[in-house]
Amino acid sequence: MMELRYANTKLYFGLKAVERLRDHLNGFENVVLVTGKHSARLSGALKDVEEVLKDLEVEYKVFDEVVPNPTTEIADELAEIIWRDGYDCVIAIGGGSVIDTAKVSSVIALSGGRARDYLRGKRAKRYLPLIAVNLTHGTGSEIDRFAVLTEGREKIGISIRYPDVSFDDPKYTLTLPSCQAVYTTIDAFFHAYEAVTAKTTNPFVETLSCEVARIIGENLPKDQGLEEKTKLMYASMIAGMALDLSPAHIVHAIEHALSGINPKLPHGCGLALIGARAIYWIHKHCENSAKILRCLTGREVRLAEEAEKAFRDFLMEVGFVERLGDYVGRDDFKEVERIVFGPLRYLISRVNFEFTREMLHDILENSL
Amino acid sequence: MMELRYANTKLYFGLKAVERLRDHLNGFENVVLVTGKHSARLSGALKDVEEVLKDLEVEYKVFDEVVPNPTTEIADELAEIIWRDGYDCVIAIGGGSVIDTAKVSSVIALSGGRARDYLRGKRAKRYLPLIAVNLTHGTGSEIDRFAVLTEGREKIGISIRYPDVSFDDPKYTLTLPSCQAVYTTIDAFFHAYEAVTAKTTNPFVETLSCEVARIIGENLPKDQGLEEKTKLMYASMIAGMALDLSPAHIVHAIEHALSGINPKLPHGCGLALIGARAIYWIHKHCENSAKILRCLTGREVRLAEEAEKAFRDFLMEVGFVERLGDYVGRDDFKEVERIVFGPLRYLISRVNFEFTREMLHDILENSL
Repeated sequence: MMELRYANTKLYFGLKAVERLRDHLNGFENVVLVTGKHSARLSGALKDVEEVLKDLEVEYKVFDEVVPNPTTEIADELAEIIWRDGYDCVIAIGGGSVIDTAKVSSVIALSGGRARDYLRGKRAKRYLPLIAVNLTHGTGSEIDRFAVLTEGREKIGISIRYPDVSFDDPKYTLTLPSCQAVYTTIDAFFHAYEAVTAKTTNPFVETLSCEVARIIGENLPKDQGLEEKTKLMYASMIAGMALDLSPAHIVHAIEHALSGINPKLPHGCGLALIGARAIYWIHKHCENSAKILRCLTGREVRLAEEAEKAFRDFLMEVGFVERLGDYVGRDDFKEVERIVFGPLRYLISRVNFEFTREMLHDILENSL
Repeated sequence: MMELRYANTKLYFGLKAVERLRDHLNGFENVVLVTGKHSARLSGALKDVEEVLKDLEVEYKVFDEVVPNPTTEIADELAEIIWRDGYDCVIAIGGGSVIDTAKVSSVIALSGGRARDYLRGKRAKRYLPLIAVNLTHGTGSEIDRFAVLTEGREKIGISIRYPDVSFDDPKYTLTLPSCQAVYTTIDAFFHAYEAVTAKTTNPFVETLSCEVARIIGENLPKDQGLEEKTKLMYASMIAGMALDLSPAHIVHAIEHALSGINPKLPHGCGLALIGARAIYWIHKHCENSAKILRCLTGREVRLAEEAEKAFRDFLMEVGFVERLGDYVGRDDFKEVERIVFGPLRYLISRVNFEFTREMLHDILENSL
């Protein structure tokens, strides 16, 4: 078992980590468990949490309404339940969608307002204790301060709060479908890749991001047993730290626009769809791109074409063969442009070069 | 400029980091600056701190009595000054000796007792705000919770408190004499090496420690300008995190005994003197030893003899040619044994094998 304190979060990592939940429920009478429809049950995490709560005679209610690409409405609904029923603590059991929703609702419950206000800059005044049980090896949300919600067709990421306590038990990720395992790992990779190619990068972000890329490069192509899952979950966790220190930019901006337009597009899948050509443009301007791609693929990539090819080859190696055209069409490109250069402008300003509309269209065209 | 939050410490890293001191002095009327005799002045750090204090009209007093291998008496004396004169905050400007003394005194000032009580297990109830301006690339004390003090002939390390705010500005290390630069870097290396070979190691400690070894291996043998100093100071800082997560053991235990007996022995020098043969024994029992030595030297070392030789060669490469016999003699070995297997027993129990008296004598004999 590994214990870490990073920023405001105390994190437990390893098998049976959730047993330590009992040390963090002191004084709580009733808590709300936030989950999606399937993975909290399928993974066994919900049962493990329930056992601890029953053992300590803490009352609880399960709110299992969170969906992938969650909306502000869901966060508002959950916040109202927490507020009206006077829960003492929120326990999120899931991936990024679940943890992000719980973050926002835990704030609204004590600070008022609606989720969309926070997407537009309202500051959190107070928030309920939040415990996160992470079920993916991609989100990083268990250790970062970010949440992403969808309002209408727009997906917006905000800096809102850290979980107080988080648990990363790799055995819960053994039940992830294999395509989801690839998607979520690609999410972790882009947390690292974008962190290290942002204007805000620093030596610690480099240390973390290179390690993330090395671990993913070594373990994602393998059949994933517990050993590989443990390494991938660790990589995802430190990618969350890197992201927290130096936030994402172009690739996440475009993906948020895409999965805002088509909520059936899983986040990590969207990143993979456009990632190779986005890397082409970022690589032209950021030295660190070569470094992290070398860590991922073991290849020396100098030219932007080589960088793009190295990443495409890696995706092939891990069995990712989808195309952007499976989810959106050329008709949607104008709307993507409007969102990326409108509400998500703050994301693309995080690189040290001017990201243009032409670059965006080139990425989309080359990903179809 | 890099900003990090680790455990209870907010850390600023980079040139002119100390300018950010002004953000952390709110509400303080009078502070005490703790330094040694030379480096705080020579490096320019004292002047930089004084400028901020004068600018904000905060009163201050300089306590410049801290010596290398500081004693409990010095910590007690400083604590009494802080308490009687009612200072609001302690600012330590120096290396490990200065920061460690300030840690202990900041506790005694509000929790009572004497330094020796804390060495024997007394717990800190309260402590004054502590700000650390680190002047070495070795200590790690600016980001860890440890302090080491000498009582009589015994040097004891304790877990006592984190600084609240720390500053790592590499330009302050440009005035370190070159032998000190080697000593302090070897200290950082052993923080990483011992952390990763302790029972308490974990994946994050491995990530940090391998990076420490890589950076030291690449930069210590070079002539050190600001670029190399920046990298070495960064390595030292993350080695401090590794140490905080997984504390030191055999090499530090023996060194504490040696410099307890001869306070003229600089800590990092003592580690270098016995390090190669200590590595020989640790390498036999800890897989991670090969990994970190590969990061340091670029060499694949399998046998313990190869590990010892690789480290000896590295010391030669960086110009370290001293021998243990320059500081202690065979007559002292019984006393070293008494201290290592007596008051420092808790340190040698941190490895996954039984460290014997025979191993200790072998290390000492082979280092003479």
